[in-house]
This record gives sequence, C-alpha cells and structure tokens, in this order.
Amino acid sequence: MERIRMVFSGSGGQGVITASIIIAEAAVLYENLVAVQSQSYGAEARGGATKADVIISDSEINFPKVNHPNLLVCLTQEAYTQFSPTIRPGGFLITDTRYVKTHNRVAARQRELPIYQTVMDNIGKPVVYNICMLGAVISIIDIVRPESVMKVLEARIPANLIDINKKALELGRKLGEPFKEL
Amino acid sequence: MERIRMVFSGSGGQGVITASIIIAEAAVLYENLVAVQSQSYGAEARGGATKADVIISDSEINFPKVNHPNLLVCLTQEAYTQFSPTIRPGGFLITDTRYVKTHNRVAARQRELPIYQTVMDNIGKPVVYNICMLGAVISIIDIVRPESVMKVLEARIPANLIDINKKALELGRKLGEPFKEL
Repeated sequence: MERIRMVFSGSGGQGVITASIIIAEAAVLYENLVAVQSQSYGAEARGGATKADVIISDSEINFPKVNHPNLLVCLTQEAYTQFSPTIRPGGFLITDTRYVKTHNRVAARQRELPIYQTVMDNIGKPVVYNICMLGAVISIIDIVRPESVMKVLEARIPANLIDINKKALELGRKLGEPFKEL
Repeated sequence: MERIRMVFSGSGGQGVITASIIIAEAAVLYENLVAVQSQSYGAEARGGATKADVIISDSEINFPKVNHPNLLVCLTQEAYTQFSPTIRPGGFLITDTRYVKTHNRVAARQRELPIYQTVMDNIGKPVVYNICMLGAVISIIDIVRPESVMKVLEARIPANLIDINKKALELGRKLGEPFKEL
C-alpha cells in the first residue's frame, strides 16, 4: 500500500488531535496496519494554530513527523495559510467553508466542505464536529472502515453519545464521497 | 535547560496519551517552552500496551520519538517489562504499586507509587487517575507548574470536573515529592 501521510490542522477546540488519534487507533487495532500520531508545539501554538500528524502504513514508520501530507485538512484560515503550501503534489486538501476562504493555487485536489454547517443543521451540537470531519477523510482515502472508527469511539465515549457520533461520521462520509471522483 | 524526554506507558484506558498531551500543552502555552508529543502504534498496540512520548525543551526539537527517556512511567506490568530496559541511566522510573511488581535492576531512580490507591481512597473515581499520575510527574521533574496544568484542564473539561482534577493533581504532587530527595 501507499504510505498515507495526513495533517489535521485548525484551532485548539476543534478536536483535530482527538480525530487524528482516533483514525490512528482504528487503523492499528482494526485494520492490521501500523500508525504514528504526533503533534509539535512551538511558538506558533501560542498563536492558536494546532497541527496533528498521522502516518498510516503497512510497514514500520521511522520518522513520525509529516512535512508534506498526502491529505491536509485545514479548519481555520490561519491553518490554511500556514499549511496549504506544504501539501504533496496530487494530494487532497480539505477545508471547511465556514472557516476558510481559499485563495492559494496548490497542485492538489482541493475541496471545500460545509462540515460545520452540516453538523449544526443535522445534529445541532458542535461537539461531534471533528467526527464529521473524520467521516469525510475516511470516505476520501478509504484506508479505515467506518465500523473501525466506531469501534474506537465505542471504547472511548459514553454509550449515550454513540448515536450522534455515528450520525456525524455518516454525514461526513457523504460530504467526502464526491471527492473520490476527482 | 536540559531537554526532558518522557515516556508514559500503560494500557489504553489509563489515559496516558491524554496526560502526555496535557503536559505538552502546559509547557508550550504557559511555560514558554516547545514540546513534541507522539505515539507509535504497531503490532504491540494490539496486545494492549500504550506508549506516549513527550519531549519538552527550550529549543527546536527535530526528532520526536523518545527511545531512552529521562522519565519513564509504567502503569502496567506489560509496559514495565517492555519499556523499563530503555530508561536513560540516572533517569526516573515511576510505577504504580497496584499494577506493577518491579524486578529489573535499572540504573535509574526508581519509585513505586500508590497512585491508583490514592485516587480511590481520596476521590473514589478512577477517571482522574492519569491526572494524579501527572501530579507526581510534575512534582519530580519541576518543568511545568501545577497552575499551568490546571489552565490546560480548565480549557478542556466541564466546569463541574475541575475540582476533582485539581485534587487529583495535588495528591499526585504529594506522592512525587519524596522523589525529589533521591
């Protein structure tokens, strides 16, 4: 398999670190793959940008940082400005229409998704925003099955929150689906 | 300052990844340091051992993995068996008396702390177990102030849980204090 290098970027409260840990655990525990997940915090973190890296592979991963992602998610304008130039040519760039106005030309398959809007319209609670984003991601890269993500969630969250997380994941998958045709 | 390389190891439900993210964020956001936090998941993760790495420094960190920690926390027997041989000579090795029987001789300052017992006796809820562990850690390495950890927690958790987290952190600090004299 191709080694998948992902970066999830945004602001602290958007849950990008949690999302990156969930997809890494799903890949390892239920897809028989290996994964590394990391975040580097420097001076820029004090300004508000959060960046979480995930590498998923079928063979040992020696260097855990992602400098040039195959798939980059930017959930704030600041994250987009900072990280969109780093995307690997031909990679996927996902932004949220609510938070990011795209302007760079990048040699990537770029898609603006109404993730926040979809969550608020259909669920009404921003708490599952990152799970909806993750749904879009797994729809696009097809490396982790949704049921594997749900198994990780079922082990982490209270039973009464499973249903809205499942719904958020499904909504995200629908948002991501047209991306596959690009 | 000396670069601090930490490994928190245990099983999935013990909150070692969360604890490592909290200390990294506290160092960066409130102590003007830089930090890298990562977890590698391979075949061993499917067996149950979780390992979370944190490096804290005052200068750029290029390689984010920790192979030889200055401070190693082992919260299960399996984690102890697997990781205790990796500790840096002169480093700190912390185990929980409930979960780990030590037997290796390591060239480290080794301390067995009743973390779980302390949390259950004084708070009665294992949910703050990892915060009590973190209290011991920050007492021993003195790199992040408890109020910085509390600021990170206040931004992450519901208001009604702040008090028990604060209490857990304080209990952990008391457990760690005698370690300083080693």
